[in-house]
Amino acid sequence: MQNDIYKKSLELHKEHHGKIEMISKVKLDSKEVLSLAYSPGVAEVSREIARDPSLAREYTLKRNTIAIVSDGSAILGLGNLGALASIPVMEGKAAIFKEFAGVDAFPICLDTQDTEEIIKAVKQIAPVFGGINLEDISAPRCFEIEERLRNELDIPVMHDDQWGAATVTLAGLINSIKLVGKTKDVRVVISGIGAAGVATARLLIIYGITNILYIDSKGIVHKDRTDLTTEKKELLRGSIADAFEGSLTDAIKNADVFIGLSKPGVLSQDMVRSMNEKPIIFGLANPTPEIMPDEAKEAGAYVVATGRSDFPNQLNNSLVFPGIFKGMLESNIPQFKIEMFSGIAQALADYVTDISTEKILPTMFDKEVVNIVAETVKKYK
Amino acid sequence: MQNDIYKKSLELHKEHHGKIEMISKVKLDSKEVLSLAYSPGVAEVSREIARDPSLAREYTLKRNTIAIVSDGSAILGLGNLGALASIPVMEGKAAIFKEFAGVDAFPICLDTQDTEEIIKAVKQIAPVFGGINLEDISAPRCFEIEERLRNELDIPVMHDDQWGAATVTLAGLINSIKLVGKTKDVRVVISGIGAAGVATARLLIIYGITNILYIDSKGIVHKDRTDLTTEKKELLRGSIADAFEGSLTDAIKNADVFIGLSKPGVLSQDMVRSMNEKPIIFGLANPTPEIMPDEAKEAGAYVVATGRSDFPNQLNNSLVFPGIFKGMLESNIPQFKIEMFSGIAQALADYVTDISTEKILPTMFDKEVVNIVAETVKKYK
Repeated sequence: MQNDIYKKSLELHKEHHGKIEMISKVKLDSKEVLSLAYSPGVAEVSREIARDPSLAREYTLKRNTIAIVSDGSAILGLGNLGALASIPVMEGKAAIFKEFAGVDAFPICLDTQDTEEIIKAVKQIAPVFGGINLEDISAPRCFEIEERLRNELDIPVMHDDQWGAATVTLAGLINSIKLVGKTKDVRVVISGIGAAGVATARLLIIYGITNILYIDSKGIVHKDRTDLTTEKKELLRGSIADAFEGSLTDAIKNADVFIGLSKPGVLSQDMVRSMNEKPIIFGLANPTPEIMPDEAKEAGAYVVATGRSDFPNQLNNSLVFPGIFKGMLESNIPQFKIEMFSGIAQALADYVTDISTEKILPTMFDKEVVNIVAETVKKYK
Repeated sequence: MQNDIYKKSLELHKEHHGKIEMISKVKLDSKEVLSLAYSPGVAEVSREIARDPSLAREYTLKRNTIAIVSDGSAILGLGNLGALASIPVMEGKAAIFKEFAGVDAFPICLDTQDTEEIIKAVKQIAPVFGGINLEDISAPRCFEIEERLRNELDIPVMHDDQWGAATVTLAGLINSIKLVGKTKDVRVVISGIGAAGVATARLLIIYGITNILYIDSKGIVHKDRTDLTTEKKELLRGSIADAFEGSLTDAIKNADVFIGLSKPGVLSQDMVRSMNEKPIIFGLANPTPEIMPDEAKEAGAYVVATGRSDFPNQLNNSLVFPGIFKGMLESNIPQFKIEMFSGIAQALADYVTDISTEKILPTMFDKEVVNIVAETVKKYK
């Protein structure tokens, strides 16, 4: 089945030689049109923009165009395959941006993985863009790159592996908690403290879910460990849970929620059985989740979500990134704020009036989703 | 008239918010298609490209996409207006690439004018592109930037202000010389030794027209001057003309051809009258030529060409750049060669079987032009 998808995917990519193309919005079929769209008429447009730089938004593609920037260091779940191998992913994302939100997006796949060089390159190419979507850049570099670019650029910057993932996860969690009749006091275990894990934890804390244990490759993150990054220390301070030395097996006991942003198969059925009543299991590792949905259900899981489209409750960034950038471009917001992502999660969760264990969120094919997200963004201008 | 074009151009740009957009070549209307164009299917495409980087050309937009790179330092005839002001020009060029040659082009407007930084930035963004069109970068930086990028990148790089201009000028000159019944021995005066002037001179020399005097802002370029750039010294060595101290007035006496790539109005009617019989006058300064066509004709000019679409014999890069990159992308040539530009000029000139003083070259609206250029490029693989 998976092999069949891979074969068909190669065929599709070969047939079209990629997925996006540029087209002219103006039919250049006469000297007269050409003299307006290009020389000599365009000279006046350049002069006007030189006079007032804000007019670039009125007169050029900048108004509706974003860059999808990757260095290929963390492509999907495949790891560091470099710039060229990242192109098909960024191009697919560009296609989604246009098809689902009308946003023009262009893949910028950088032939460098040096933090300072990435920051410099993105600043240098920024003039033509209305926003920057960072993508598939590995942690911890992604945190500094995003933060620095937000401070140093005058257009919004978002690392989607962080905030897209975090927003969808929180949205799904809000409705899952409602389904099991619990509150923000739920005990949460987050497995995997990379880009998505850190942002998800930050967003949960902002939202008011603060009883969290974090699991990285060394086990439970606790204050006596000497190997903690700045981000992990910050997350520890944000959680009210009394973290201790131990493994996922220890952490998961009596927890209400498991959020996996880590590796295939790390959650066992016994672990699910050791959880509090009506366990909520988000196994979001791609393409193979931390526990397969049928196994989780068999062990007593009440709500199960994955990152995959072939199971119910797919929690995928695609649900929010098109609308986030659409709202941003339409309202010309100066920068993304973390409260905005939590607002979007709430709005998405509220949109589903018929929640069930098989449907905690709408799908991206629901045409209303992009508007709900975009309109929420605009409230945070 | 000009003001009317400017007003209409601003309106057109405001109406569409620029001129190009990205579209998806694949309709993303089902989970199944999405699983092929994006996750999980796209993972296999990334793996294949990581295994064999040359497959990026098969599976992604790289095959048919070029970057139009500018730093905004020499926008049209407007000068150094910076990156933002260059966007409408680069976007117009991208629209022309698609409409006339089916080539996907994206504007990269760099927020730096430092030679080393430009070279570095272009190398870093190169993976997604099949070729680089440098545009509106001022001399002499443009020479080093082009040469370095050609040596350091594995995709073709061309500065269109140099080679597009030079190719069209040579093509027009070949047919003009034929019209007046002269040979390659014609005495040529080139006024303006910037990007276009240097490349035009280089191309004329390669073609075999070597009796050339060069005029820059200090007058005639000759070997006793102490202020000559590397490029000007090289051009002097390539010319058989005995250059002397003097002005354009001195140089133009008994010349057969005037090629202006300089400033409005520098050529007077008296200068035209001092030329050899049947003078050929190319006044290519934009938007106002070195001499207006009616004045040149009145003073005895036999063939007159300008850069403008509202007079006969428009010599504009647009005649060749779409076909040059189309041919390059289709045949995957490793790098542009100067002999190729001279071959294109000859092919374009030969295409016109009914040359006259009012028609030395075809217009860009002649559908055959792009194919003639592209097919000629392929011969130089």
